[in-house]
Amino acid sequence: MARDKFDLPMVAANHEALSPLSFIKRTADVFPDRVAIVHGPHRATWAETYARCRRMASALTARGVGRGDTVAVMAPNTPAMVEAHFGVPMAGAVLCAINVRLDAETVAFILTHGEARVVLIDREFAPVMAQALALIPAEARPFVVDINDPLAPPGEPVGDTDYEAFLAGGDPAYAWTQPPDEWDAIALNYTSGTTGNPKGVVYHHRGAYLNAVGNAMTWGMAQHPVYLWTLPMFHCNGWCFPWTVAAMAGTNVCLRRVEGGAILGAMEEAGVTHLCGAPIVMGLILNHPGVQPRPAPVRMMTAGAAPPAAVLESMERLGFAITHVYGLTETYGPVTVCAWHEEWDAEPPEERARLKARQGVTYPVQEGLMVADPTTMQPVPRDGATMGEVFMRGNIVMKGYLKNPAATEEAFAGGWFHTGDLAVSHPDGYLEIRDRSKDIIISGGENISTIEVEGVLYRHPAVLEAAVVARPDPTWGETPCAFVTLRPGMESTEAEIIAFCRDHMARFKAPRTVVFGPLPKTSTGKMQKFVLRDQARTLKG
Amino acid sequence: MARDKFDLPMVAANHEALSPLSFIKRTADVFPDRVAIVHGPHRATWAETYARCRRMASALTARGVGRGDTVAVMAPNTPAMVEAHFGVPMAGAVLCAINVRLDAETVAFILTHGEARVVLIDREFAPVMAQALALIPAEARPFVVDINDPLAPPGEPVGDTDYEAFLAGGDPAYAWTQPPDEWDAIALNYTSGTTGNPKGVVYHHRGAYLNAVGNAMTWGMAQHPVYLWTLPMFHCNGWCFPWTVAAMAGTNVCLRRVEGGAILGAMEEAGVTHLCGAPIVMGLILNHPGVQPRPAPVRMMTAGAAPPAAVLESMERLGFAITHVYGLTETYGPVTVCAWHEEWDAEPPEERARLKARQGVTYPVQEGLMVADPTTMQPVPRDGATMGEVFMRGNIVMKGYLKNPAATEEAFAGGWFHTGDLAVSHPDGYLEIRDRSKDIIISGGENISTIEVEGVLYRHPAVLEAAVVARPDPTWGETPCAFVTLRPGMESTEAEIIAFCRDHMARFKAPRTVVFGPLPKTSTGKMQKFVLRDQARTLKG
Repeated sequence: MARDKFDLPMVAANHEALSPLSFIKRTADVFPDRVAIVHGPHRATWAETYARCRRMASALTARGVGRGDTVAVMAPNTPAMVEAHFGVPMAGAVLCAINVRLDAETVAFILTHGEARVVLIDREFAPVMAQALALIPAEARPFVVDINDPLAPPGEPVGDTDYEAFLAGGDPAYAWTQPPDEWDAIALNYTSGTTGNPKGVVYHHRGAYLNAVGNAMTWGMAQHPVYLWTLPMFHCNGWCFPWTVAAMAGTNVCLRRVEGGAILGAMEEAGVTHLCGAPIVMGLILNHPGVQPRPAPVRMMTAGAAPPAAVLESMERLGFAITHVYGLTETYGPVTVCAWHEEWDAEPPEERARLKARQGVTYPVQEGLMVADPTTMQPVPRDGATMGEVFMRGNIVMKGYLKNPAATEEAFAGGWFHTGDLAVSHPDGYLEIRDRSKDIIISGGENISTIEVEGVLYRHPAVLEAAVVARPDPTWGETPCAFVTLRPGMESTEAEIIAFCRDHMARFKAPRTVVFGPLPKTSTGKMQKFVLRDQARTLKG
Repeated sequence: MARDKFDLPMVAANHEALSPLSFIKRTADVFPDRVAIVHGPHRATWAETYARCRRMASALTARGVGRGDTVAVMAPNTPAMVEAHFGVPMAGAVLCAINVRLDAETVAFILTHGEARVVLIDREFAPVMAQALALIPAEARPFVVDINDPLAPPGEPVGDTDYEAFLAGGDPAYAWTQPPDEWDAIALNYTSGTTGNPKGVVYHHRGAYLNAVGNAMTWGMAQHPVYLWTLPMFHCNGWCFPWTVAAMAGTNVCLRRVEGGAILGAMEEAGVTHLCGAPIVMGLILNHPGVQPRPAPVRMMTAGAAPPAAVLESMERLGFAITHVYGLTETYGPVTVCAWHEEWDAEPPEERARLKARQGVTYPVQEGLMVADPTTMQPVPRDGATMGEVFMRGNIVMKGYLKNPAATEEAFAGGWFHTGDLAVSHPDGYLEIRDRSKDIIISGGENISTIEVEGVLYRHPAVLEAAVVARPDPTWGETPCAFVTLRPGMESTEAEIIAFCRDHMARFKAPRTVVFGPLPKTSTGKMQKFVLRDQARTLKG
C-alpha cells in the first residue's frame, strides 16, 4: 500500500542504477572522434576506447567472469589501465588494481584474498607477478594476460595469453548491461593497514559515480579536460578520475613513469589542463632544467603533506593552481578539499601557504565530516587547538573491508567512518591534520606502515628493539627513519639493516635512515615516539 | 545471507539519501559570508539564507506540516521563492510552485488536487489567489502566508499571516533531517496537459540532486556562478537551478519581472555569469536601447524554439555563449543538450545556427534517449529524415503523475517515458524536434495546449467549429492562432472572440489571431491541422 499520495513506484523508465559506466557510453556516443587516450605517439578516440572496453567485457564474460568476480590488474598508467576501469565492471566484475611497487608476497596475498579470477600484468612487472603466482596453489591460480605495452621495457611473457589477443577475441559491440544494483561492487583496493595483512577496501558503483562527479564539481571543471596521469591509477582508482575524465569527455594522457622530463613533454604535447599528484610531483616539475611557465593555467590537486610556501609560490609562477585535498583509500581517495576563498588571494605568500596547507572541508558529494572526540563522538570546538579524530560519513565512504566484518564494524562504529587521523578544527570549520594515529608515513605519495617496517626489523637477528617514525624529506615528503637497539654483543651497520629490509618488503618501504642507540620509553615501558619524531626532524645528512 | 563476498551492508557511515538539501548545508558552512541572494538593493549571505530556510522548515513543522504534505508558493523570482526551495523540503514537505500567470480556477484546481496545506503568496498575485481560495471548500482551505516583497507593487494582504512574521516564529538553528529515502518527493509541478485538468508531476530528491549536478557538468560550471533568474522558478523548479547554484556556492540574482532594462541592470550590478530563458529573453536583451557588449563572457541556456542565426550571432557579438537544451516538466526540465563540438566553430553562421537548433543529446546524468517508432519502440535510423517519437529513461524522469495512475502508466509504457514530441535523429546521433504530437504551442516560454484553447472557443455561443495552431512570432516564438467557423446566422469579430477567451482562461493562452472561414478536413472528417499551420505561417499583420 502506498505510504502517502506521493509514493509512486520505481519503474524502468524512471530509475537506473548509478554507475560511472554511463559516462563512457554517453561520451563515446556524443564525442566519438575526440581523443580519449594519449600514450606516447599513440592516440585513441572515445569510440575506439569504448569498443576496446566492450571487447574486454565480452572476453571476460566468455571466460565465465561475472558479477562478484575479481579481475586484478598490475600496470602503470597505460591505456590498458584506463580500459580496465570500464571493461572489468562492464562484465559485472570487480577491478582490483595492484600497486606495482609491492613485493611478490603481498601481491600473492592480494590475489588470493581477493580471489582474482583473471590478472592483467604489464610486462615490466611480470617478474614480480611470476614470483607471486608461484606462491599461489595451482587450483587458485588466475588466468594471466600479458599487457605488452609498446612503451614498456623488454621482458618475457608470464601469462596465458597476450592482452591484444585477449581483446581480439571479444566483441566490440558487446551488449553489456548496467549493474542491476548501484550498491554492487566496482573496485577492490588493498590498503596497507598498520597491523597484519593489507585490507581489501570495496567500492560500489554509486560511490564511484558520485566521486567522479564530485571531482568535476570541486574543480569547477569545464568540458574536455586534458588530464595527465601522474597519480597512479592503482591508488584509489586514480581517485576515480578515469571516470571523471569520461564524464567530462576529456583526454587521458598516460605516463608510464613519473619523471620531470616525461611530465613536461606530455604537458607540452597534449596541452594538459589538469593533473593530480603527491607533492613530490611538484618537485619533479620545479627541479627539471627544461621547465618553463605554462602558456595556459594548469590545475593540480595534491594530497598528502601540504607543500611549503616556497614550492606553492614557484608552482604558481609557472602557471599551476594548486588545490589541496585529503582522504583515504576507504573514502575513494580525497573527499576533503581546502576550498579556496577569493579574499585569501590578497594574503602574503606564507599566509596563503598556511591556509592552503589545511585539509579543509568536505567534498560536495560527501555528507558528513567532523573532528571529534573518539570516545564521546562529540565534535571538538572550532578553536584550531583541540585535537580530535577525523570522522566521515556519506556515499563516498567504502562499502566495507572484504571478508573482514570485524574491521568493517570497527571502522564504522557509531555511524561514522573512523579515519584514525588526528586533527584540529579551525574557527572557519576547516580541518587541519596534526598527527596520524595509525603510524603511517607518506613517502612520495605511498603510505608506509611504521608497524610493518618494525615487524621486518624485528626479524633481523641483531635487532633487539626497533621503532620507526617519519623523517621529513624535501623530495619525498617523508621517509621511514628507524631507531634500533642491537642485541648485546651483536653488530650491524645502517647499510646492512637497510639491505635486510629491502630484501624482506617492498623496496619503497625500507628505512632510509637507521639510528643506533637506546630507545626512549615511559616509566611503564611505552615507547615515546614523539621523542623519536623530534630527533628525526633534526637529524643531519 | 550475503549474495557474494562483495555484498557488504549499507550502514549509517556509508549511505545517505541523495538530496539537494546537502548542498545548502555545505555551502552555508564553507562559504557563510558569500552572497547567496541579490534582490534589488537587498543582499543575503549563504549563512543568512540557510538560517531563513531553517526558520521556514521549523515554522512549517510547528504547523504540523511534514512528510508527504504539500506547500504551495505563487511568486515571481524573489528571495522567498529561493528560500522555499530549501525550507519546504527541509520540513519533509513537497514544494508546489504555481505559475503566476494562471487563472483563479486553475490555481484552485492545483491547490485542491495537490492538497496544499500551506500557501505562500506574493502580494502581486494576491487578487487571483483570493479568487482561487474562494473556490475551495472551507475545510480544504490552506493556511495562507503573504509574502510582502519590498519590490512588489502595493497590494492588500489576503492571508493569515505575513511571511516575515511566519519566519520569525521559526528556529534559525532548526535541526532538520535529510529525507529518510531519496525516492521521497521534493516537488510537485503542474503541467497543462492537452486534455482535461493539469497533471501534477512529482519530482524526488534523488532526481533533483542529480539534475542539479547535471546542470553544472553540462555547463562545465566553475565555482561561484552568478546566476540571473530570468527563468521562472515555477517552471520545473527553475530547471533545478536553485539547487545547482547552492551546490556551486554561487549567487542567485532575483528578478521580479523579465524586462530588458531590469536584465541589463542586474547583469551590470551583480556581474552575472549565467542565465537561462526562453528565446524571448534574447529579444529583450537585443532590443534594449542600453545594450552593450558584456565585459566578460555570459553563458545562457535556452529551451523551446531554437533562435535564428541572426539572433545567435547578435548575442554572441554581445558576449553571450548560447547553449540549446530541451526537456519537459516530466524530465525535471531540460535533459537534452546540443553539446557543442569545437570544430563547429569554424562553420559559417547559418550552419552553426542550424547545428545549434538541434535538441541534441542526453544530459550526462540521464540514462537513455531515443527517437523511436512509438508502436514498435524500435529506434529510427540516424538519417535526419525518419520521424519518430522522443523517448527518455533514467533518474531524471519524474516519479509519476500525482493521483493519476492511468496517465503515469501510459507515460511509462514499455519502460520509457513517452514525450509525445516527434523528432528525427541525425547521423551524429543528435536529435531534432520536428513536431509536437501533443498540440502544444510554446509562447514566451509558456506551454499552451491548443486543445484547451479550442475547448474555450467551443463555449462561445457563435462558434460552430474551431482549430488552434501555432503561429510563428518574432517576439514570443509562437502565439496561438484560431481558425473559426461561425454558426449559420451568427456574427462575431476577432476582438470579441479574443476578449471572450481572455475572460475564460489565463490571458497568455488566448489567441492573438482569429481567422474566420471553413476548416480543412480529410474525407473522413479529420481536421487537417497541417494546412492551418501552413496558413498561419504565411498570415500577414
